Amino acid sequence: KKSFRVVVLPGDGIGPEVVAEAVKVLEAIFVGSPEVELKLETHLFGGCAIDELGEALPASTLQACKEADAILMGSIGGPKWGVNSKVRPEPGLLALRKALGLYANIRPANFASDSLVINSPLKESITRGVDIIVVRELIGGVYFGERKEQNVPPQENVAWDTMIYSVEEVQRITRVAAQIALASNPPLPIHSIDKANVLASSRLWRKVVTETLNSEYPQIKLEHQLVDSAAMFLVSNPRKLNGVVLTENLFGDILSDETSVIPGSLGLLPSASLAGAPSLPSSPSFKPTPGLYEPIHGSAPDIAGKGIANPIGAILSAALLLRYSLGLDKQAQLIETSVRKALDAKNAGGLELRTADLGGEVGTKEIGDRIVEIL
Amino acid sequence: KKSFRVVVLPGDGIGPEVVAEAVKVLEAIFVGSPEVELKLETHLFGGCAIDELGEALPASTLQACKEADAILMGSIGGPKWGVNSKVRPEPGLLALRKALGLYANIRPANFASDSLVINSPLKESITRGVDIIVVRELIGGVYFGERKEQNVPPQENVAWDTMIYSVEEVQRITRVAAQIALASNPPLPIHSIDKANVLASSRLWRKVVTETLNSEYPQIKLEHQLVDSAAMFLVSNPRKLNGVVLTENLFGDILSDETSVIPGSLGLLPSASLAGAPSLPSSPSFKPTPGLYEPIHGSAPDIAGKGIANPIGAILSAALLLRYSLGLDKQAQLIETSVRKALDAKNAGGLELRTADLGGEVGTKEIGDRIVEIL
Ligand SMILES: CC(C)[C@H](C(=O)O)[C@@H](O)C(=O)O
Ligand SMILES: CC(C)[C@H](C(=O)O)[C@@H](O)C(=O)O
Repeated sequence: KKSFRVVVLPGDGIGPEVVAEAVKVLEAIFVGSPEVELKLETHLFGGCAIDELGEALPASTLQACKEADAILMGSIGGPKWGVNSKVRPEPGLLALRKALGLYANIRPANFASDSLVINSPLKESITRGVDIIVVRELIGGVYFGERKEQNVPPQENVAWDTMIYSVEEVQRITRVAAQIALASNPPLPIHSIDKANVLASSRLWRKVVTETLNSEYPQIKLEHQLVDSAAMFLVSNPRKLNGVVLTENLFGDILSDETSVIPGSLGLLPSASLAGAPSLPSSPSFKPTPGLYEPIHGSAPDIAGKGIANPIGAILSAALLLRYSLGLDKQAQLIETSVRKALDAKNAGGLELRTADLGGEVGTKEIGDRIVEIL
Repeated sequence: KKSFRVVVLPGDGIGPEVVAEAVKVLEAIFVGSPEVELKLETHLFGGCAIDELGEALPASTLQACKEADAILMGSIGGPKWGVNSKVRPEPGLLALRKALGLYANIRPANFASDSLVINSPLKESITRGVDIIVVRELIGGVYFGERKEQNVPPQENVAWDTMIYSVEEVQRITRVAAQIALASNPPLPIHSIDKANVLASSRLWRKVVTETLNSEYPQIKLEHQLVDSAAMFLVSNPRKLNGVVLTENLFGDILSDETSVIPGSLGLLPSASLAGAPSLPSSPSFKPTPGLYEPIHGSAPDIAGKGIANPIGAILSAALLLRYSLGLDKQAQLIETSVRKALDAKNAGGLELRTADLGGEVGTKEIGDRIVEIL
């Protein structure tokens, strides 16, 4: 019997509510399983950790994360620990990413069910069939380069940040994008994003992406897009970027958020942050990749505690956790299919099961229960 | 009689075609005017200058631009001078911006006519009433900071760029945004964009924007947005950013392009790049601001020479030129009203006047002629 250790970081705001549903789904799948045992342990992280222990990423939490096979997170932050607070949750998240070497952020954006297309802010003719996986480099670039604050000598009235990439950093994230592309048959095309007409780091990025794919993955179609053009296409013709969108950290921050509103609610979408290239699901020799999994939405303090948050992003994050870190692709697919069925289903009154973010009145728990039933 | 010197840089691709219509409109307004004389002189810039003179920005062109009251540009670039060419047009544009001190890029995005709303990729309910003016800092930040290419010692396998801002640079662009906001009554709100939760340059940006507006323009409403959130709102709820969107150079590059696809065609939108804060139109003591005016679309080599490009972006750029650099606000409004009327008009067959980018069959010249007629 295989045993896995999964650290759960519910976090702040609606984090605990949506994570509870994801945990419910995981437990439903593995309860009484003769093959797999999941050991879940919950730790403090984010604003709640600041309140109880004075820091966003307590040493005990970090230690547990390091020893875990995978981490399931809710969401962190809120006005209580805002921009003017001494200790803030966000640096804790950046520190956790860095400490665990989570260099690959993976964010699929698509319509889990065709019935969701009407929720997109884009016209149906533009949005139907959008299926984009953003692969964002997560622990390099201007997020972690040297910087100087204002009021620090020698030039007190100037502040700067360094956008920096090495060949190795670009190679490894390119390989992650390639593995994700190869998990589909035929392989997905890769759209690499940069600003090579201006930035030296982007010229290195473009060269290394090209060389790595040409030499190691010649079967994958590669196309380069400037970040400004990509930002336009995501609105005017997003299907043009269907496949894998491969970007450095800052461009990925912007474009993955822009992409994520296409399906109509942030509440629907999962993410994975990995410390290595994922194995192909079909691969006979699965190699686990440590990772942190979280819905892409924030802590939404305005609706916290009301039981109305959409748990689907968290539940689909649990599916990615099974796929990439535990090698349980079949169970991951089972969750994904069940989510789709729940979204396609109607209740006794003939209404679709929709939380408030999608204009419905169904609660967080009810969505989780329904998905468990379908499982 | 006032005499103004306007340098015309038609550039490449469809640039000459659309600029010809803008010039036609300007000439129609001022022909035989007892008060205003426009002296137009055309110079080589961009790919055409590379072909004829070996450089994108010849010294004679730069000199003429420096001596002019304003510059009207078409568009530059094309596959002939692509990423692998030795001499490329884009660095010429960056050099021209820098040499003329054009630190303020102004890009309005709205529906020149309600009849255009159906062309937006966004649903009508989301897009109707969008009216955003992006004010982008244009000669600072990571575009002009120190950088190091790959294969340059000491660390050959690394490349980097510096995102840098000084207090003065942020103050002056903030004042431009404030002047634009004050040109409306009541003043428009300002949405300042940064990534202050990560970047030192953004923390300086946020602090200086806040202090400058609070002390000099307390009547203007200010709101801060993270760049990733702004990229989302532009798709999910763009009216939330109605007013002035104030951003540093790189974020402005991305967000102004993202904004520009909302009205349905890049061919419709103008831009101004100024070397100072514009005077209020109502101000009795107009102070001219040197500036470069261009439609936001590219050189579109695929349709160049066919006479089907949309000249409206170029024509509206000419209107901005009159307003900001020559102080001729009434004539600027006249052009804007005429464009609106042309867009609302129908031809003999009952069809709206639309170029190919908007799904129509009307040619570049015909649009220009119609606007001249309406004038
Ligand atoms: C909280 C913030 C530092 C973070 C980032 O910019 O990476 C967030 O926006 C994200 O995308 O996960
Ligand atoms: C051509 C390029 C260098 C330029 C820029 O990034 O500023 C363009 O995209 C623009 O926005 O005018």
